[in-house]
Amino acid sequence: MSQPPIILGIDPGTLITGFGIIRVHPQTPQVLDYGCIRPPSKLTCYERYLIIFNSIEALIEKHHPDVLAIESQFVYRNPQTAMKLGIARGMALLAAARKQIPIFEYAPKKAKLAVVGTGTASKEQVQRMIQLLLHLPHPPTPEDAADALAIALCHAHTIGVKNRLAVR
Amino acid sequence: MSQPPIILGIDPGTLITGFGIIRVHPQTPQVLDYGCIRPPSKLTCYERYLIIFNSIEALIEKHHPDVLAIESQFVYRNPQTAMKLGIARGMALLAAARKQIPIFEYAPKKAKLAVVGTGTASKEQVQRMIQLLLHLPHPPTPEDAADALAIALCHAHTIGVKNRLAVR
Repeated sequence: MSQPPIILGIDPGTLITGFGIIRVHPQTPQVLDYGCIRPPSKLTCYERYLIIFNSIEALIEKHHPDVLAIESQFVYRNPQTAMKLGIARGMALLAAARKQIPIFEYAPKKAKLAVVGTGTASKEQVQRMIQLLLHLPHPPTPEDAADALAIALCHAHTIGVKNRLAVR
Repeated sequence: MSQPPIILGIDPGTLITGFGIIRVHPQTPQVLDYGCIRPPSKLTCYERYLIIFNSIEALIEKHHPDVLAIESQFVYRNPQTAMKLGIARGMALLAAARKQIPIFEYAPKKAKLAVVGTGTASKEQVQRMIQLLLHLPHPPTPEDAADALAIALCHAHTIGVKNRLAVR
């Protein structure tokens, strides 16, 4: 790959889906975009899922990410919540699979560990650390966007570590 | 609607997704197609979800259903299973939502009640009753296809009852 890879990070949710897109540079990763997809609550759940899918597809078509890094499954939620979250995650997974973009999953704790240094970091700690690491003018909001950037950074760290190990 | 409506019934699953397509006639519903989507197990889960989505989209493009009737959520499964089943369900919901096809959800018990007369019917009872009601040469297999036809029939009964109530 001649160009540095672009990572799309996604923090899926039934109400708010956070996204963060970074380009991996040897020194500092560059933020291309971040924010959240928040379909209007007055819509049916099916219309909301369609908006999540269309929005992620539009992000992919705009930024051409090489990789999707997505928050992996919570196992402690109740089955009803897990089912709904599964549908929302499915929208991101399908949008990437349709474009043959490789998918990597990271547990929320692993993303926090990679960014803050502890898997039990607070939302505010993640937001402040993301601001520092990515040289943003202010902490990214909402927290879902910060989490998505953290997942993208977690993947960048993972491939960076792998590359360093390969060089040795 | 001048033509009798076409109902696409879906019984979603992570390994096997059953489908059944019927055209509602005043006397006997007509079976247009039934079967199952069984993506190869050697593929990644993402590739399998893509196959589920593409297959349902192809069924919609071939048969132009007016409605998607889909098995609703189980609440007793564990969160990990519910999450995966949610992703599979999401593929069917998105395929319908992208074509602006209305979606109706039915609990498995309600579908069994509509077809067999009891919500606790066995798989074999459902298969035999579907064979009788739809004048099929043999019980539909696999059971996931029979369940999908049962969900489609359940929706046909529901709109039939509503129509009869409206006429009174």
